[in-house]
Amino acid sequence: MANSVRRRMGVEQRREQLITVALDLFGHRSPEDVSIDEIAERAGISRPLVYHYFPGKQSLYEAALRRAADELSARFVEPREGPLGERLLRVMGRFFDFVEDHGPGFSALMRGGPAASVGGGEQSPATSNASAMIDDVRQAAYEQILTHLEIERPSARLELVVRSWVSLAETTALLWLDGRRVPRVELEVQLVHEFVALAAVSAAYDAEMAALVRRMLEREPPDGLFADLVTRLFALVPQV
Amino acid sequence: MANSVRRRMGVEQRREQLITVALDLFGHRSPEDVSIDEIAERAGISRPLVYHYFPGKQSLYEAALRRAADELSARFVEPREGPLGERLLRVMGRFFDFVEDHGPGFSALMRGGPAASVGGGEQSPATSNASAMIDDVRQAAYEQILTHLEIERPSARLELVVRSWVSLAETTALLWLDGRRVPRVELEVQLVHEFVALAAVSAAYDAEMAALVRRMLEREPPDGLFADLVTRLFALVPQV
Repeated sequence: MANSVRRRMGVEQRREQLITVALDLFGHRSPEDVSIDEIAERAGISRPLVYHYFPGKQSLYEAALRRAADELSARFVEPREGPLGERLLRVMGRFFDFVEDHGPGFSALMRGGPAASVGGGEQSPATSNASAMIDDVRQAAYEQILTHLEIERPSARLELVVRSWVSLAETTALLWLDGRRVPRVELEVQLVHEFVALAAVSAAYDAEMAALVRRMLEREPPDGLFADLVTRLFALVPQV
Repeated sequence: MANSVRRRMGVEQRREQLITVALDLFGHRSPEDVSIDEIAERAGISRPLVYHYFPGKQSLYEAALRRAADELSARFVEPREGPLGERLLRVMGRFFDFVEDHGPGFSALMRGGPAASVGGGEQSPATSNASAMIDDVRQAAYEQILTHLEIERPSARLELVVRSWVSLAETTALLWLDGRRVPRVELEVQLVHEFVALAAVSAAYDAEMAALVRRMLEREPPDGLFADLVTRLFALVPQV
């Protein structure tokens, strides 16, 4: 019976099943701790059959990584409706959901650190593939934010603000995973605030950024996320 | 004559010389584009003699990386005198000097991206060594900043602010190297401002951080870096 079900699964279906199993395992444990045997067992098939669909753990890992990258990029898509602060906050919520779901895998991937191997004169293809996928996700995040800012041709300063913020979100998520000492809901709000803070710092010395930040703040509701931050910051500074 | 000079160089001296040559080459070109032949030629010795001191390009690359990491960490050390903003600005100046001196090498290392190789079940030793060295430099930066804040046991929120800022400095430097579209002196000031901005965002919702930020701002001179930012930010916000 199990055998006939197995046979009835098409190649694509089987590949999808293996990717799902692998993603779950890689997401909860460091990739080097996951064996093909375990993947085979979870999928209810033999080890050789896994190799029939994926030539090795590396290719299965990369397929799982591609799936994860696509899934994460999809989470950045947010309707262009309502205050910007709330849009960013919803995206941050989905980002932290992802980080929570794939914690150890996300950490291992991002903390794997730079590839310094020059032994063979080249990075391993696996390393550069993973690196390229991460860059794709960063780029997707960057482009989504520009869409919400309604900017098609960002200045160098705006690009710096947005890309800096994307990297801040990564760092914050990694630090959060390492002990979870600050509740994630606070970090989601903090990241939204940090976006406006980075934009404001840039705007303090650049007229184009200043126009953009003024437009952002004017569109926010008086009881919105940005207004709350501004009020609290005014209270913080001893004198003007 | 050349031969006798060569023989007179001690083992440590020769290793140091090779590291210096390698660091210069790796700093100006991507490591995979640098050959042992070139290193030998620059050092005025034979290729086999290079291998006598370093078993391969990888070990020479790692020694150069260790030297660079130590050099960068040393640049974070700043006397605890004068306004904090100016201290941070001096450190940023030295950091960008380093980035400028080692541009392509710094980029290649940091952009090498995460090590996703699970083929052999392990990261390559080279990758994990480089990754550990980068973490050491980040840790050195983190600890130096705490020293200047006169904080021995940072709260989770302060740790997050400081480590976020360290990662922001990395990202900013990498984006700067990619086209240099914003002058580095502006970015150095911007990073100092971003430090106070990140601290302020955290302080807006946390009493302990608020006390720290108030203390930071009170100690700054009225014509200092932080005061200038605050004045400009007040001008930016439409109404209170």
